[in-house]
Order: sequence, then C-alpha cells, then structure tokens
Amino acid sequence: MKRPTGVITHPAGFSASGVSCGIKTGRDLPDLGLLVAEEPVPAAAVFTTNKVCAAPVLVSREHLRTSRGYIRAVVANSGNANACTGKQGLADARRMTQLTAELIGAQPHEVLVASTGVIGRPMPMKAAEAGIRKASEKLSSDYRGGAAFLRGILTTDRFPKEAERSVHVAGRTFLVSGVVKGAAMIAPGMATMLSFVTTDAGLERRRMQGLLSAAVGRTFNRITVDGHMSTNDTCVLLASGRSGVKVTAEGRMERKFARALEEVLLELALAIVRDGEGAVRTAEIRVRGARSDADAERAARAVAGSPLVKTALFGADPNWGRIVSMAGASGCAFTEDKTSLRINSLVIYRNGKPLPVTKDIENAMRSDHVVFDLSLGLGRGASGVYTCDLGHNYVRLNAEYTT
Amino acid sequence: MKRPTGVITHPAGFSASGVSCGIKTGRDLPDLGLLVAEEPVPAAAVFTTNKVCAAPVLVSREHLRTSRGYIRAVVANSGNANACTGKQGLADARRMTQLTAELIGAQPHEVLVASTGVIGRPMPMKAAEAGIRKASEKLSSDYRGGAAFLRGILTTDRFPKEAERSVHVAGRTFLVSGVVKGAAMIAPGMATMLSFVTTDAGLERRRMQGLLSAAVGRTFNRITVDGHMSTNDTCVLLASGRSGVKVTAEGRMERKFARALEEVLLELALAIVRDGEGAVRTAEIRVRGARSDADAERAARAVAGSPLVKTALFGADPNWGRIVSMAGASGCAFTEDKTSLRINSLVIYRNGKPLPVTKDIENAMRSDHVVFDLSLGLGRGASGVYTCDLGHNYVRLNAEYTT
Repeated sequence: MKRPTGVITHPAGFSASGVSCGIKTGRDLPDLGLLVAEEPVPAAAVFTTNKVCAAPVLVSREHLRTSRGYIRAVVANSGNANACTGKQGLADARRMTQLTAELIGAQPHEVLVASTGVIGRPMPMKAAEAGIRKASEKLSSDYRGGAAFLRGILTTDRFPKEAERSVHVAGRTFLVSGVVKGAAMIAPGMATMLSFVTTDAGLERRRMQGLLSAAVGRTFNRITVDGHMSTNDTCVLLASGRSGVKVTAEGRMERKFARALEEVLLELALAIVRDGEGAVRTAEIRVRGARSDADAERAARAVAGSPLVKTALFGADPNWGRIVSMAGASGCAFTEDKTSLRINSLVIYRNGKPLPVTKDIENAMRSDHVVFDLSLGLGRGASGVYTCDLGHNYVRLNAEYTT
Repeated sequence: MKRPTGVITHPAGFSASGVSCGIKTGRDLPDLGLLVAEEPVPAAAVFTTNKVCAAPVLVSREHLRTSRGYIRAVVANSGNANACTGKQGLADARRMTQLTAELIGAQPHEVLVASTGVIGRPMPMKAAEAGIRKASEKLSSDYRGGAAFLRGILTTDRFPKEAERSVHVAGRTFLVSGVVKGAAMIAPGMATMLSFVTTDAGLERRRMQGLLSAAVGRTFNRITVDGHMSTNDTCVLLASGRSGVKVTAEGRMERKFARALEEVLLELALAIVRDGEGAVRTAEIRVRGARSDADAERAARAVAGSPLVKTALFGADPNWGRIVSMAGASGCAFTEDKTSLRINSLVIYRNGKPLPVTKDIENAMRSDHVVFDLSLGLGRGASGVYTCDLGHNYVRLNAEYTT
C-alpha cells in the first residue's frame, strides 16, 4: 500500500502516533492511533444519525458537551466498532478516553474516542489499553506521527486517504489537513467512516460546528457505497490556531477556510468511493430539473443505491433503463416525456424517447468515472450523489467478514 | 427445467397457448403467450406504482377502464419490456391488443397486454405480430395450453412458478390457479413481475379489485429481491364463473375465496424469492414490537434491502450487527436496550446486549431459509418481508444483461 504522507500533523500544534496492539486478532496490523493537540483546542464533530449508535460516538458526544467543545485528543481504533455492545461497551469507550487523558495529562472529557470494525463484539480492552500506553509514548509532531495515526485507523483500505489545502491570504498561510478511513477490502463491514481534520487556523468555536456540518453535507453526505448507514461514523475537526491566522465570523477569511475545508472533505469523500468495497469504477448521479432539491436528492440516492444500477456499472453495461426506472420509483415528481438522460454527456434518452446505444456510449461506460446526468424537466431542483459499482469483490468481501 | 403443469387452464372457461416468435433475439426460446376466456369475464388487476410505467401497463389500465373490467384475453411476452419506449411503445402495445382482439373475435379494449424484458428497446413488432397469430391458432383449454403460456412469459427462471388451491364448500368446488414470472438467471433485469390468476368461481366484478389488492398487499408486496421496482409489474385476476359457485359479497364463500387467493399468491411470491437473481438462500425479516405496523415495515424493508445483510446471507455469515444497524438507520422508532434479535429462534442479541455466536447459530445461517426475528420492544407494530441473498450469481447476471 502507498505510504501515507501524514498530513494531520502538518498543521502546527498537533502530534500523533499509531501502533499495532492486537485489537485485530491474529494479525500484527496497525489498529490504534492517537491524535493530540498541545493544549485544549476548539473542536467540532458530526456523527452518525443511526439510532443504533456505537459507544464511542455516545461518549464523544457527551465529552464535546462537557468540555464545551475544547478538546485535547482523539483516540481511535480499527478492528472493533464497539457497537451493539451494551453497558460494557460504554464503560470500555469511557476507559479508553480516561487512560488517554491520564497519559497525556488531560481531563477525560477533553478526549474523544472513535472506533471502526466488526459490530457486536466486546472491545478487547487488554489490547486496547496496551495500545494506548504504547501510542502515548510514540507521539510525534512530524509527518511520521500523522502517517502512523492514519495506518492505525485503516482497516483494509487499498490506499491511504489524505487531503490537504494551504490557504494564503495577505501574506499569511494556514493549512487544512484531513484523513479518512473508508470502506475497503477485507473488513469493510459497516462503511464505518472515521475522519479527522486538523487546521492551524484560528477558528471561533461557535462557528466551527456550522462550518463542519455544511461541508460534510456537501461531501461525505453525498456519497454512498451500499446505502447501509454506519453506527460509528465520526468526523472531527480540531483547530490549533497556531498559524497565527484568525478566521473571524462571516469574513473573507472564513469563506476561504470554508472552501478549503470543503475541498479537503470532497477529496476524501471521492477517495472513499474510489476505494469502496472492491470497486472497479465510480459514478456520479446528477439530477437536474427536479421539482425541488429534495426531490432531486431522492432520485439521485435511489439510483445510486440500486444494486441493478451498480452491477451494470461493474459490467460496463449501458443498461440505462435501470437508471430511469429507479428514479421513477424513488418517489420524486416525474414525467416520462420530460425526462432525458446523458452518460458522460452523451444523450441516450431524450424527452421520454430512447436513442440507439452507440459505440461512444459503450466506451463511456468503461471509463473509470461515469457521470449519469438525469434531467427531469420539471423545475430547478438539483442534486448529485457519488457512488461505486457492486462487483464480485463486494460479494466476496462481505460474505466473509466476521467468520 | 421442470415442466409447468399448466394450472391456469385448469379452471373451466379458459384456454391458453405459448409460442417462440423471435422477440428474444438469436435464441429459439418461448417468448409470447395468450390467455383467453370464452366470453368477457370480470377482471381485476394491480400494476407497478413506478412513475416510469411501461406502455403495456398504460394500455392495460386504459382497457380495464373502457371495458368496465370485463376482459376476454391477455397477451403477454418476455424478452422486451416495452418500457421507456415513448409514443412508439404505446402504439406497439395497442397494436398487440388489437391484433389479438381481431384473431379471437373480441374488442381491443377487452384485451390486456403485459411485457417483461429489457427496458428502452423498441418492441420487435414483426416478431410479436407473427407470435400473436401463431399463438391464436394454438389455443388449448387443457393443461398443455396453460403450460405453454407459462413458458412463453418466463425469461430464465430456474423453475416454473405455479400454485393452485381448490376450494370445497357445501359439495361444490372451485379452483384458484396462478402463475408468475420471477427474476431469474440470465435476463433478470428489472424483476419485472408478471402474474396471472384464473378462477372458475363466480365473482362480483365490483368486489374483485379489493380482494386482489388485499391479497397482493400481503404477498407480492412483501417480497424484495433487490429493491428495484419494476416498470412492468402486472398481476391480473380473471374469473370465469364456470364452476357454478357464486361468491357473494362479504359471505363465508368470499372469505374462503380470499384465503385461497392469498395462499396462491404467497406460494408464488415465495417461489420468486427462492428463484431470485441467482439466490442460494432465502430469508424472512420479521419485525415485532414496533411503534406501529408502518414502522415495522420500514425496518423490515430496510434490512431486507441492505446489500451487506444480503451478502452476509450469501456467505452464511452470522454478522447480525448488520441487521440491527440497518433497522436503526431505517427511520423507525428504535431504542437499543429494548431491542432483541433471534436467528431461526436462537437469541443472539437481547435487550441491547450481544450474546456469543454459537455453533447452532452458525448452522442456522446455513439453512435454506433463515428467519430473522427482530423485536423492538416499543409497541405492537409488526410486519415481515421475504428476501434472498446477494451472491456472485447476482453480480454475474446483472453485469451482463443487455450487452
């Protein structure tokens, strides 16, 4: 696998580490990481909206409230999601934050925790505690620390997913640097997405949640690999302020920061889709001309979630009827003779009439990234969703996950 | 393939035929069938609710209105869905009913039409017309006619799907006989479900729609193979009255008829799931204790539609966290510590606490039919959905459908 470049320790004020501690049983693979700020820094986070919510998500939410959003560290592990684990799971997640706090000299509520892996198995705490101790001794503020952290949270992603933007304004510079753990080859179970973003910009705590939620809404929330919402999704943003650049509310600098953040998250989101569940090909489902944006999103999500669409994508099969029919079943307003479909800008269905499948369209279906552009002709609503194909690797990986 | 027994011509008053006419190009396979009543008989039908609606569905709906529900014949074909085919498609579907009417001596609006196959290709009308002519010469009221009809509408179902009940009351007997074309191995594209039910019971036309809709709601509408609603779903009920048994409104006989109809449709529905998209295993997702029936159905459908659940079913992997987490993401009311899950009656998750995966549970996952019983502990709402696994055959079949 390509080596991570360790972006999250590029911004000043952060150190990180990653270790192998045996949470992933029987394999000496990295499975735990620590990300530590030099002092409590303003933080924001978004979490899964699944009503089955993993213990680390519950504990992190609680700690963000108790600390009023000032965070020292994140402890994250792969190999076990600590979800559906009842009271013991909660105690275990708390213990992970407590031990981390002790070792770095912080309060437990200044520590967030994130886990990914199989659901419904108790967290192997002996391994986790040993890992946290080891990781606390290896913290490093250079790129190696960031790289080790990322390795610690990957399960079997085929490549590390990092993105970074540096923003220059009026002779000054700050960094926005993010990593994500996607759904990958051997243990992709729940698409349990963990993402951590650091910046050395100086952000106002009260603005951060809005900025992060908006960016996530336009990036991570617009991808789907298999439509199965995780119990562990977590995206954390930490701002050290160490660049000296102050991002004030609603100013030009905030817009610059927001754009950089969105670009970083979009790059990470697309990397997840590219690495989704053994995928060979990605797609964007664009819907325009819908009665409303919500209608467009409903159609785009339905199409992106259809196994028939995804297997056709795998087989490079220009079976476009599957796309139109799924949009028609999505519940959005729909009139056949106003509907058109383009595949990589080539028209295949115009105002309810099919056109011949040309060689060009067959070739378009074979490209690495296919854009389906569905125009409903009913209004100005628009949306888009990114997804990947569903092929034999997906079946192989997911039929053999826990046993 | 097992030979059909030809049930739909068992009830008195019907004849049928099936032919190969070249709609399925390049293969000399049965692809058209005719089902004819001796005189106009009361009929009821339910159709897809997809807003992308195939031409034959539009024409059949129109004809049911024009004829006030008295129907002489159904012409059905496989190999081409005549969906997303614009005005030409409508003209073609009309022409199929018109030619059938001419040949059997009926009015065009007394003929229904149903098609299944690939979407977005013009109906090869030369072949279809030749097929209708040939089929009209081969009509037979014995079982051979019924068997040929069924062969004509199958695409590549691995086995014919027929069900029949005879009802005896007060020394008299009537039959309820149904066939269905499911989603199968080579051309399963849209799960375009066509089903035809004949009975020689005497039914009141005004009661038939309600009886059929209720039975479909409890049977066909409770299965999912891949969550992709067809543009062509059609289920037609025709009643010849030739048994001499009169089924009067809301009487004991009507309840008997309703039960027989539901049993026939359930048997057909389960056969579709068993033969779904290369499936090796079926499952029932039962949800109890929900806040409402609608909530229970929402959870059951979400679980049954999850590719992660379906690939685990394929691999006989007791990865039950996927089921609980999908229910949690479904939007139904949900409280983890009131939730329990059984697999073939063996408890694996009790009130939010995971239990060990035993050998018995591993064996249960390997059975041909697995019942997941999810209890939400919040109320009296209940529902259930039948589905099948998603394995390599599904991918293989659906990646190589049109090209």
